[in-house]
Amino acid sequence: MNYDVLTQVRQLLLAQRWAALASLREDGGPAAAFVAYVTEPGFNGFLLHISRLAAHTRNLLQRPVLALAISEPDTGRGDPQLLARITIQGSVSVIPRGTPDYLASRECYLAKLPDAEQLFGFEDFVLMRLHPQEARYVGGFARAFQLTAEQLLQLAAL
Amino acid sequence: MNYDVLTQVRQLLLAQRWAALASLREDGGPAAAFVAYVTEPGFNGFLLHISRLAAHTRNLLQRPVLALAISEPDTGRGDPQLLARITIQGSVSVIPRGTPDYLASRECYLAKLPDAEQLFGFEDFVLMRLHPQEARYVGGFARAFQLTAEQLLQLAAL
Repeated sequence: MNYDVLTQVRQLLLAQRWAALASLREDGGPAAAFVAYVTEPGFNGFLLHISRLAAHTRNLLQRPVLALAISEPDTGRGDPQLLARITIQGSVSVIPRGTPDYLASRECYLAKLPDAEQLFGFEDFVLMRLHPQEARYVGGFARAFQLTAEQLLQLAAL
Repeated sequence: MNYDVLTQVRQLLLAQRWAALASLREDGGPAAAFVAYVTEPGFNGFLLHISRLAAHTRNLLQRPVLALAISEPDTGRGDPQLLARITIQGSVSVIPRGTPDYLASRECYLAKLPDAEQLFGFEDFVLMRLHPQEARYVGGFARAFQLTAEQLLQLAAL
């Protein structure tokens, strides 16, 4: 994998904080919703802090597979096909409240998204970790690259 | 449905042009990708013009169900949970090349996305119409509204 591409992927994942989450409905159909996300420092996981009142959270608790799509924001000018975007495919697990992992992950999340602090006091919110299996980065029209989970881990060293 | 909410939904659908598409992989898992979209004038359909070389297009040709999620772009400032966004759930059909529907739909698409003109000359591209079944609009934190396909049609009259 080209060094420039890896640098672009790293930059995209760290610069953005708003992603589209695809999950599976109870009937097996596809669901989509926007959620906030935070990239963990090792690029081994992505944190989601979402409400059990939302259908996508219930989907993930029942069927813990997902795809997370992240794009540069569209400015409304030029050709949107040229926007850099990535889709991460993987599974999710709940980070149990009160564990050292929960406390460290909450800190990591709030460092990026400080406005979310009060949501950590809400009973219906659950902190989840997306475990990436593979990713597909599109850096513009017909410029697509497949990344393994191992290649994502390399981003931490850049 | 509140008039103000319908106005916000109309504004969001018309102002944006970049959406996250959730589809189903061959293994039944969820897929996500960003695509350009155009709202048809009657709010009865949404146009996608996508390449058969892309996995999401092949997913839709095999399993024509999808969810399309559209959000205000994140500026990186303030709380992203306050961004207005909508998910449209529905099915898709291919608009056959050379038909009056194709020609009119291409014109509608290019009026919004003129940079896409050359893509209409590519054999691998297919023009599809998303037929909405229902939609869910979130106008900020804990401000969610369910819309039927009939309510979407009302947006055309606003």
